[in-house]
Amino acid sequence: MLRVAVLGAGRIGRIHAANAAANRQAKLVAIADPFGSAAEDLARELGCAASTDPEAVLARADVDAVVIGTPTDTHVALMLAAVRAGKAVLCEKPIDLDIAKADAAVAEVERLDGRVMLAFNRRFDPASQELRRAIDAGEIGEVRQVIISSRDPAPPPRAYLEHSGGIFRDMTIHDFDMARFLLGEEPVEVMATASRLIDPNLAEIGDFDTVMVNLRTESGRQCHINCCRAAVYGYDQRFEVFGSAGMLMNDNLRPTTVRRWSSAVTDAREPLLNFFLERYADAYRTEFEMFRAAVEAGAPMPVTARDGRQALRLADCALESALTGRAVRV
Amino acid sequence: MLRVAVLGAGRIGRIHAANAAANRQAKLVAIADPFGSAAEDLARELGCAASTDPEAVLARADVDAVVIGTPTDTHVALMLAAVRAGKAVLCEKPIDLDIAKADAAVAEVERLDGRVMLAFNRRFDPASQELRRAIDAGEIGEVRQVIISSRDPAPPPRAYLEHSGGIFRDMTIHDFDMARFLLGEEPVEVMATASRLIDPNLAEIGDFDTVMVNLRTESGRQCHINCCRAAVYGYDQRFEVFGSAGMLMNDNLRPTTVRRWSSAVTDAREPLLNFFLERYADAYRTEFEMFRAAVEAGAPMPVTARDGRQALRLADCALESALTGRAVRV
Amino acid sequence: MLRVAVLGAGRIGRIHAANAAANRQAKLVAIADPFGSAAEDLARELGCAASTDPEAVLARADVDAVVIGTPTDTHVALMLAAVRAGKAVLCEKPIDLDIAKADAAVAEVERLDGRVMLAFNRRFDPASQELRRAIDAGEIGEVRQVIISSRDPAPPPRAYLEHSGGIFRDMTIHDFDMARFLLGEEPVEVMATASRLIDPNLAEIGDFDTVMVNLRTESGRQCHINCCRAAVYGYDQRFEVFGSAGMLMNDNLRPTTVRRWSSAVTDAREPLLNFFLERYADAYRTEFEMFRAAVEAGAPMPVTARDGRQALRLADCALESALTGRAVRV
Amino acid sequence: MLRVAVLGAGRIGRIHAANAAANRQAKLVAIADPFGSAAEDLARELGCAASTDPEAVLARADVDAVVIGTPTDTHVALMLAAVRAGKAVLCEKPIDLDIAKADAAVAEVERLDGRVMLAFNRRFDPASQELRRAIDAGEIGEVRQVIISSRDPAPPPRAYLEHSGGIFRDMTIHDFDMARFLLGEEPVEVMATASRLIDPNLAEIGDFDTVMVNLRTESGRQCHINCCRAAVYGYDQRFEVFGSAGMLMNDNLRPTTVRRWSSAVTDAREPLLNFFLERYADAYRTEFEMFRAAVEAGAPMPVTARDGRQALRLADCALESALTGRAVRV
Repeated sequence: MLRVAVLGAGRIGRIHAANAAANRQAKLVAIADPFGSAAEDLARELGCAASTDPEAVLARADVDAVVIGTPTDTHVALMLAAVRAGKAVLCEKPIDLDIAKADAAVAEVERLDGRVMLAFNRRFDPASQELRRAIDAGEIGEVRQVIISSRDPAPPPRAYLEHSGGIFRDMTIHDFDMARFLLGEEPVEVMATASRLIDPNLAEIGDFDTVMVNLRTESGRQCHINCCRAAVYGYDQRFEVFGSAGMLMNDNLRPTTVRRWSSAVTDAREPLLNFFLERYADAYRTEFEMFRAAVEAGAPMPVTARDGRQALRLADCALESALTGRAVRV
Repeated sequence: MLRVAVLGAGRIGRIHAANAAANRQAKLVAIADPFGSAAEDLARELGCAASTDPEAVLARADVDAVVIGTPTDTHVALMLAAVRAGKAVLCEKPIDLDIAKADAAVAEVERLDGRVMLAFNRRFDPASQELRRAIDAGEIGEVRQVIISSRDPAPPPRAYLEHSGGIFRDMTIHDFDMARFLLGEEPVEVMATASRLIDPNLAEIGDFDTVMVNLRTESGRQCHINCCRAAVYGYDQRFEVFGSAGMLMNDNLRPTTVRRWSSAVTDAREPLLNFFLERYADAYRTEFEMFRAAVEAGAPMPVTARDGRQALRLADCALESALTGRAVRV
Repeated sequence: MLRVAVLGAGRIGRIHAANAAANRQAKLVAIADPFGSAAEDLARELGCAASTDPEAVLARADVDAVVIGTPTDTHVALMLAAVRAGKAVLCEKPIDLDIAKADAAVAEVERLDGRVMLAFNRRFDPASQELRRAIDAGEIGEVRQVIISSRDPAPPPRAYLEHSGGIFRDMTIHDFDMARFLLGEEPVEVMATASRLIDPNLAEIGDFDTVMVNLRTESGRQCHINCCRAAVYGYDQRFEVFGSAGMLMNDNLRPTTVRRWSSAVTDAREPLLNFFLERYADAYRTEFEMFRAAVEAGAPMPVTARDGRQALRLADCALESALTGRAVRV
Repeated sequence: MLRVAVLGAGRIGRIHAANAAANRQAKLVAIADPFGSAAEDLARELGCAASTDPEAVLARADVDAVVIGTPTDTHVALMLAAVRAGKAVLCEKPIDLDIAKADAAVAEVERLDGRVMLAFNRRFDPASQELRRAIDAGEIGEVRQVIISSRDPAPPPRAYLEHSGGIFRDMTIHDFDMARFLLGEEPVEVMATASRLIDPNLAEIGDFDTVMVNLRTESGRQCHINCCRAAVYGYDQRFEVFGSAGMLMNDNLRPTTVRRWSSAVTDAREPLLNFFLERYADAYRTEFEMFRAAVEAGAPMPVTARDGRQALRLADCALESALTGRAVRV
């Protein structure tokens, strides 16, 4: 029975807290959030302690593991504090927006032999797991090309974007992680192009809303990523893995399987599940369970702090490539 | 080089004439139609002789085979005249609306050793051919259940319906033939139910617009047919064959493979090809070619006059069942 | 907070007990099963009381509602006992295998103003709910034809079949309920045909393994049901609703959305979820929640005991029709 | 009635000759091929004159238009000769492998006001036409991203590759043309990455077998192209056009619409049509017809020599980018 505390009672913290509370082999002990009554409300709903002080929660002896779902700029400090307090950590992405800070954090985690898992939820989607399993089973031979399409239903507010680190570090970072997950090899070169097709004013903050990235591994495997901050048909998340002996794809999720025929369309499916909380509900559940299982078994973390650093590095390379028009060596 | 005459220059006659003209191993010699300038116009377009007298065309020595696309009540007479004139015959369905007349015609054709093929075009659709081939290859083991869905885009005019013989003999007859084609065994029992959901006034002519039929073979194989005279999404033609080792389905055809995503729908396909002339264009071409090949090779006809009679018998049984509420022995 | 007891700790009882335990607005109080340690094991897992005596559990004052998941021949007695004890009841299908006994039970429930919901789980599948909602919203105009395909992955053991009441009352009964749910009108006529294509020895117990049924309502709406006790590709559950303004379909569920391309197949999806416990996991959850909500709100039951009786009556009519070859008036 | 000669009696020449022969508003006059009896055999089959001398055919007064399907290094000379002889020209891609030569040819064609259409067949596929029509109709708002997947079933022989100009100029050139067709704006920047994943020995001839290219237009629209010389599942040709108000996709073609269910797969479709002659049979037919119609109407060519030059330029840029790791300005 893993005893868990959740730091952060916002959108993503709620998900983790609910999954911890519902997991029969875990016990949600406490929720911490410095802002207002967020932690208290959530704790009451889920039946655990509440605090406005994350440090105090980290000091509790009855906590074995913490989930960090706080703002990005607090990730490194809380992660290291938790590791030093002997807690296992499930930390939201990204580690940090600054690669130097991320590098230092990863080095420190490794020096301390800390147990840190990065919360790249998409890896834990049932379809992602099946893609990886099928690739490992040799179903499609040697992987040649991976195509990742990743579009959000609508852009976040400007205030969010200003502190997001930019589309590559905030949004595409998930796709960089999936690229590594599906390629089965480390990308060594990044080429990117970036546009402002939704909001030209993003130029004011040096950000983009529509990007394309190509990655290449040492052996020549290739990955294409396309991202856009808005898609009218919903949250679009598709993976295609093409190999020497076949191809695999996943599809988006809809609320139900109902399809429609009318005088205008045939075989029409429903709009996509709106956004990541719905789309990846299963993935978040599985992510928490795999964290719990790894911690309790003393097994390697399914995703490490170093994986988090690597995705950030790819994001930095992509931004540099988009700005310079050169392929950037990772 | 098969020398062909087409009797009837209406909607279906045009199709056969064009296919004969385009077939490199056939030569379209003449078109006959008693009404106005229909034959002449079509003959000019396709480069052959025209006539208003079918009998005269049957008398031509330079005609090896005739395609009969005239009104139903002329089929038997023209078929027998053609057989007696030593011509091979491709005759549109149904043979006749009267089973006794059909029986007599089939008997006479067989007595004369006539070469008659019934034009059940759906058998020659590439998907139908592949279904049959896959069944024969044992892909799905023993056939257990066949489901046939067959809906027209819009009902024909009342004037047509009055002479159509009713929905079972006019429309469902195609499905009865496909049932026999896909079941691989002869149906021995028919149960049907019939409604007037589009036009209650059909009661005046004893007809129906929405029907369901179940068939059973001696060994217990089952087939369900559902028909409706109108479907807003187009001409719906689906077959499902369920067996001990698997299942096969075909799908409808659309103008292109384009699919659409919007805020309202995802993965939406185009409306179905509107009606049989477009939907079965390939089937009509193949049908003519298989007729030509069989005639020239002296091989058995792919569909015989007796097949035409059998479908009519099933239609009669269905009507009787719908009227009496009893399963009818074929 | 609805306090719930579950009677029966077998396959289906476990599902209901787990859903009651996981529902935040319900409390699982006790589980009863006369056989061995089944109730005890399950109760320990879910944290509630255990008993080998259903009657004792019905006597508990801290139980507001009971879920009956015991063998069919105990349904009526337990249902009535529960109603008399003032409990709300969620009872598994069928009410009973004997229509007279079912009629008497329904009459008694109604006389006592009992709160009984029949557990026709398929109505609560998200796709079924969406089909019903879309029909009610007028999306497809007037319903004309409903097609229900329902095939199990593999037949149950002979011992089960001997006490099952036969395929119509045991398996097709779900489809009869869905027919009523989707038609939106009461069927008044039943025509059925039944075969033994998997196991000819079923003749010894007067049962069948492959059946087709057609239903008709007074206004002429039609429904076709096909059932088979075995399908190699998994648990097949499809609904098609065809109306004057369009058509709706649902699709089967697979473990993931991954599709495969190889030299043999393209766009191939995974085998279907194996059987009802997996396929309808969401439906069982929703069913329990709708039961809970209706009980607590004092609202009408979403499915009544009379609905259970009606499905049984249709099953009896189908059997009679299959045996006599006559359409049977409901 | 357009009088047509076809130069080249190889694989692609046969297609054009057959389409010219079958087109009711065109007349196939002659076929020329310097090698052996190729022209003679084809001419006999299609009923026209044969020649081993293309120049002689260009001199015929009874020829209005020529289709050039000869080896690439003869395209420019024959195109210019034909233009000077006053013939309209439908010329296979690429114009030439050398951009300077292509530039000179285009300039000369334009100076002479020559009527030249480049045979980019994919634009004339029914799905491509519908994509373009839907974009023009505003169905998806402003185009943001285009994704083109283009994989051949198997690599051509080494001997072919040695004279092909490399994968970008030989294979991807089609996709560069489709990128321009679907983007609706001119690409101004090209980024490419190229690998040898099928045959490492391609290094000997400086060629690649697996490539990814990203294009950007001045306004920021983006296009991704992925190509591979081999795909076990067949000839893969997919387009995705994502815009501000929706998304459009086409799908590959299979021989039939039959889908399969077994214990291993569900809803599995057939392998793709093997290669371009089958896949684009309709497109070649439409291409010829649109050429014919434009010539006879004196209307602008649907694809010009300059379009051919532009695609070649994009191929050159892609090669340069792949070799230098820099984005290349078009």
